[in-house]
Amino acid sequence: MHGYPRVREITVDNLDALARGCAILGTGGGGSVETGLLSARRALETSGPVKVVTLDELADDDVVVPLSGIGAPTVSHEMLANEDDVVRLAAEVERIVGAPIAAVMSSEIGGNNGVEPVGWASRLGVPLVDADGMGRAFPEVQMVSMNVVGLPPNLIVLADVIGNVSVVRPVDGAWSERLARALAVASGAHSLMADYVLTAEDARDAVIHGTVSQAVALGSATVGQADPLAALTDVLSARHLVSGKVIDVERRTGGGFVRGSVVVESTGADRGRLVRIEIQNENLVVLDDGEVLASVPDLITLVDSASAQAISTEMVRYGQRVSVLAWPCDQLWRTPRGLDIAGPRAFGYDLDYVPVEEIGAVRA
Amino acid sequence: MHGYPRVREITVDNLDALARGCAILGTGGGGSVETGLLSARRALETSGPVKVVTLDELADDDVVVPLSGIGAPTVSHEMLANEDDVVRLAAEVERIVGAPIAAVMSSEIGGNNGVEPVGWASRLGVPLVDADGMGRAFPEVQMVSMNVVGLPPNLIVLADVIGNVSVVRPVDGAWSERLARALAVASGAHSLMADYVLTAEDARDAVIHGTVSQAVALGSATVGQADPLAALTDVLSARHLVSGKVIDVERRTGGGFVRGSVVVESTGADRGRLVRIEIQNENLVVLDDGEVLASVPDLITLVDSASAQAISTEMVRYGQRVSVLAWPCDQLWRTPRGLDIAGPRAFGYDLDYVPVEEIGAVRA
Repeated sequence: MHGYPRVREITVDNLDALARGCAILGTGGGGSVETGLLSARRALETSGPVKVVTLDELADDDVVVPLSGIGAPTVSHEMLANEDDVVRLAAEVERIVGAPIAAVMSSEIGGNNGVEPVGWASRLGVPLVDADGMGRAFPEVQMVSMNVVGLPPNLIVLADVIGNVSVVRPVDGAWSERLARALAVASGAHSLMADYVLTAEDARDAVIHGTVSQAVALGSATVGQADPLAALTDVLSARHLVSGKVIDVERRTGGGFVRGSVVVESTGADRGRLVRIEIQNENLVVLDDGEVLASVPDLITLVDSASAQAISTEMVRYGQRVSVLAWPCDQLWRTPRGLDIAGPRAFGYDLDYVPVEEIGAVRA
Repeated sequence: MHGYPRVREITVDNLDALARGCAILGTGGGGSVETGLLSARRALETSGPVKVVTLDELADDDVVVPLSGIGAPTVSHEMLANEDDVVRLAAEVERIVGAPIAAVMSSEIGGNNGVEPVGWASRLGVPLVDADGMGRAFPEVQMVSMNVVGLPPNLIVLADVIGNVSVVRPVDGAWSERLARALAVASGAHSLMADYVLTAEDARDAVIHGTVSQAVALGSATVGQADPLAALTDVLSARHLVSGKVIDVERRTGGGFVRGSVVVESTGADRGRLVRIEIQNENLVVLDDGEVLASVPDLITLVDSASAQAISTEMVRYGQRVSVLAWPCDQLWRTPRGLDIAGPRAFGYDLDYVPVEEIGAVRA
């Protein structure tokens, strides 16, 4: 629990704050929130507000469906989802589990995947759970808390914009990623996905709680502030790693991912210092001349230095004035299994994870 | 119906003949029959002979499961299937349709996919239907008779050697191919697939009948013959397009397919004439100096000139002495929809289909 004020409903009035907060928690990925904002707002206007519930408010055997988009965020940013996708997906889930869906949960609170579920819940007429499976964004299917606590990935359902529905029963988390990704790529690099369909009882020990409320709180923190960056850094208890200008962006889309790096040249007291952020959909590692300043699973977000609005890996451009913030992930990700699944080595970096608050030199 | 003697059982005694006939009907593809022979023989020895039934012998609502391997034949030739694949796949099919499987059918009688179902039927303890969905082999999922007659491709189930099981509900035949192929490629370029699960009643007008009996007859025709090639040509009423030496083989495996071409230099009366066979898993088109001698959907098979045994596109090698035979496909493939699905243009060739028996010059 994060100690943020509890949100009991998402309406057109707090949707923007939610989206800003999701962008911050997106650590550059999870898709740019603009498309989710459009579809969620339309759903709220036509189907009404979405109740936000805790898992304790659901009955033990209530069916909770974690939902997300899977694919390259570049594509989801350019292609609006078909509004019937979630209806087709829900019908398939209900057919398989033989019970109605009681609530929708974001698989990933970060980025667009934290915002879209508002529209999906509204469309299905069910509440949204105040929790998610990451507490942030991650690029791969197996990088969810349900996998960290050891639930078997026994059912994945995908629905694409064309109307195809697919079900995958993988042997483990790595295969859930491989097969779901292959289907998403074949469908044009984006699909809607239900992953780890579970009961409220099983979900209680397997998710990161309170993250919808957290996102709304983060999105509200900068409103009307004279120094939004300071306000955001404060509410996150984040480290401010560098402020400067983007002088290089390398970015390529392939195999359902966006990969590359961003270089920021400091314009602060340490003018000229170069900080490099490596990305795979999300910001993974911050390097200063080979020295690690922060790494996954801790959260790393680029924000506009003036407005403190998050800048996704899709939207970062040469010349932007940005600040890089980093702050601790949920304790779940710091367990041995959490680090196996989403630590630096899970992304191919040959380095040991050091919690961001324990890393020495921070020269902002 | 082909007028071949009806086969009522597959045992270790007629399995070899079935396999030889399936190789002939494979038109170069469907996978080399050696792996299917191994696994089918083991199944017959441990689980007993397989009854061969016509669809008229099944009750109207009996569930028939068309089965095949999907992927690059090169891979299936090198990787023995896990014997539990078919059990996992059958369990998923029965869970979805809510009824026991009454019989197995080859989706594709040609090549390994005509032989493997013997083992699968034996393992599941159900009969094999004397029919298939092609009357030959074709490289893509949508190229089946059930699609030609207009049945919706509403359920595909795949099981891979790793243990993953996937279900695809595609919007049409083209998407069934795209999504099933993506899953097969992700699983290492080969999976076991149930496609167009249907009732015996629906199957009766949607399949090519008698092809198990036909394969056994073709495989038996050359046994003990002084001139096996003449015997095979006769039983098939085939055209003998050329006999000669393989002087060039181009073959590459990618995206779940084998593609390329084979050039045969005649050693007959027209010595030196070059005939080119274009392949995508199967032999697609035979060209003689730009002139078409035969094309899909008619059947084109390379055989060893001495033994009249089929040579698959996997196994064809420089220097082999081969003969190229071509003969008419089932009438179903010559309908407008049949040609849309599996005529020359479906494979990217800008040429009109002409039935092989109507093509003029044949210089053997």
